[in-house]
Amino acid sequence: MGADYQAVSFVHGGNVHAWARERGGALSDLLDYSANINPLGLADSVRAAINQTVDQVIHYPDVEATMLKAAISSYYQVEPDQITAGNGAVELLYVLTHIIKPKRVLIPAPAFSEYERAARAGGAAVEYFYLAPDENFIVDVNLLCNFLPGIDMVFIGNPNNPTGTLLKAGQLEYLLQAAKQAKVWVVVDESFMDFLTEDSEYTCRPLLKNYDNLIIIHSLTKFYAIPGLRLGFALTHPALAVRLHAAKDPWNVNSLAQAAGVAALADSEYQLKSRQVVRQEKEQLYAELKKLSGLKPLQPSVNYILIDVSLWGRTATELRNEMAKKDVLIRDCGNYPGLSPYFIRVAVKLAEQNIILLDRLKQVLR
Amino acid sequence: MGADYQAVSFVHGGNVHAWARERGGALSDLLDYSANINPLGLADSVRAAINQTVDQVIHYPDVEATMLKAAISSYYQVEPDQITAGNGAVELLYVLTHIIKPKRVLIPAPAFSEYERAARAGGAAVEYFYLAPDENFIVDVNLLCNFLPGIDMVFIGNPNNPTGTLLKAGQLEYLLQAAKQAKVWVVVDESFMDFLTEDSEYTCRPLLKNYDNLIIIHSLTKFYAIPGLRLGFALTHPALAVRLHAAKDPWNVNSLAQAAGVAALADSEYQLKSRQVVRQEKEQLYAELKKLSGLKPLQPSVNYILIDVSLWGRTATELRNEMAKKDVLIRDCGNYPGLSPYFIRVAVKLAEQNIILLDRLKQVLR
Repeated sequence: MGADYQAVSFVHGGNVHAWARERGGALSDLLDYSANINPLGLADSVRAAINQTVDQVIHYPDVEATMLKAAISSYYQVEPDQITAGNGAVELLYVLTHIIKPKRVLIPAPAFSEYERAARAGGAAVEYFYLAPDENFIVDVNLLCNFLPGIDMVFIGNPNNPTGTLLKAGQLEYLLQAAKQAKVWVVVDESFMDFLTEDSEYTCRPLLKNYDNLIIIHSLTKFYAIPGLRLGFALTHPALAVRLHAAKDPWNVNSLAQAAGVAALADSEYQLKSRQVVRQEKEQLYAELKKLSGLKPLQPSVNYILIDVSLWGRTATELRNEMAKKDVLIRDCGNYPGLSPYFIRVAVKLAEQNIILLDRLKQVLR
Repeated sequence: MGADYQAVSFVHGGNVHAWARERGGALSDLLDYSANINPLGLADSVRAAINQTVDQVIHYPDVEATMLKAAISSYYQVEPDQITAGNGAVELLYVLTHIIKPKRVLIPAPAFSEYERAARAGGAAVEYFYLAPDENFIVDVNLLCNFLPGIDMVFIGNPNNPTGTLLKAGQLEYLLQAAKQAKVWVVVDESFMDFLTEDSEYTCRPLLKNYDNLIIIHSLTKFYAIPGLRLGFALTHPALAVRLHAAKDPWNVNSLAQAAGVAALADSEYQLKSRQVVRQEKEQLYAELKKLSGLKPLQPSVNYILIDVSLWGRTATELRNEMAKKDVLIRDCGNYPGLSPYFIRVAVKLAEQNIILLDRLKQVLR
């Protein structure tokens, strides 16, 4: 049977259904700070697009995702033949590792755990490049390049989840160059980049034409608040896009998600407002969190904040459980390789919600 | 890079979007006889479930698909740990071939082309077991068993698409027994079985407990008319279900599809009416098609009819094109391995629609 299909423990943020089953509560009673979803919620334009498409589900989805790819092409300035649309970005991680079958994969730690899970599903052994807490988990690209020989694929979140660290495109080009020589695929996850006011210094999209070892993964579920609908895409060299299309279910992106994506990418008002709100509230929440004794938040770049709770003296799991009793879900990061059991992550939400988060945290921490 | 990822040409029924792009028409102007979807359309209960769930898409889907699996377990009398929920049944074919990586796959021909496409995506070489037109494409299970040595996986549609042939569970148990000895996985696709008035003579579900080489694939998109939403499941030994879960995107089934599935499986009125309508209309349409000169329809078992048009003297492609000009899509089966270029397939729809189909066919055939 080949590879060892070791299951990676599945603990993610946003599992509100498990909370509802455990607590017997209604989802509307819950403040979910454990998933990094746009606090503005569903755009009216997106809700309208979904509602208008419900009666079309009697037809198969467009296998070409023509309208969606046109919208992605126009918005992100990429060619349609570089795009593979996905049932969420994560689906494409699995299709990718199933077709490339990397034997050894390098993942900076901590990072989004689906990189590891998808790598193992494709049969890979996983090696970690541990990021230093006392350097705020910043990725040292020069150092990372030393570990490329013998590796088949490296994953980089930009910004990285849960740390929030950002790399400039120039640094990533240095990595891509070294990786090209060492025959290493570089998967750059730009799923949170939409939250930046301006991404031109950071995105690798313009590098696609020069680096056929570059794979950009981009979720549309966080910024447009549609994780339940599933939508994402990969940007690659057209030759790899052909292989991705051949190895996936042709109807993978449901019709409602395709319609929602087209509406979302056209809604510049929602985009602008989202970026304004997140930029403002992340700074405000960061400032307030710093004032709480026992907490050491890291400087956020987008809509989530990693927090060291070790000074509190109890674990992240205990804090998570205490907060859940108060109907606030936070992300216990204790299961991230590369993090001590004393880290939590919280989303950035609206001002009035953040006040409640801070209030409940104060109650638990004292 | 391992396997040869030869792309299989993608020609399926139900590609109404390509038709709309070519013709510039609205989907509402089209009679789609090329996809085998329940002619009753979306059940009111399913539409309501979708509409009620739209505002929940700001949360991730339930990764356990707890409610959906409970509904499947209850309706189909299987254990929850035998179920893997899918973003359509076809997604699970790909996950399956990616993890099992069969080297040689046996497919009766003609059959649903995604068996071959998924097999090749997993790196398999495909061998055909050709079904005889002059025996109405009936699968000779004894003969099929002779071809098992050296094979890793065999696919069986029951009923088979596009031929409509049905095998009894006893015949399939004979195959499963031989396959177990020869260490061959048997994938039985029961996606159209819901259209039968009574499936107990045919379904392999009761055989799951005795045959760990049995994999049942079951789409919910045809019978419940939700192909645009994507929903299906696999039934397997629990040990294989664990591997399927580990190798797939954990959020693969979107929240609307999960809610739709729960509502659909509870709607016994829709189920009953669908079976009555299809049973009646398939016999009526079959009888009328037999009267048309140039057409030789095969006895249908469910909601589609394979038709030999060779007596007309022109190809299925020509008939398809002529019918498309009249805004009726039929399935040109010329690209099916194991069929001559003279076969079409039509769905069974409502009486008033079937009258239009017959009328347009008469216009083209004369």
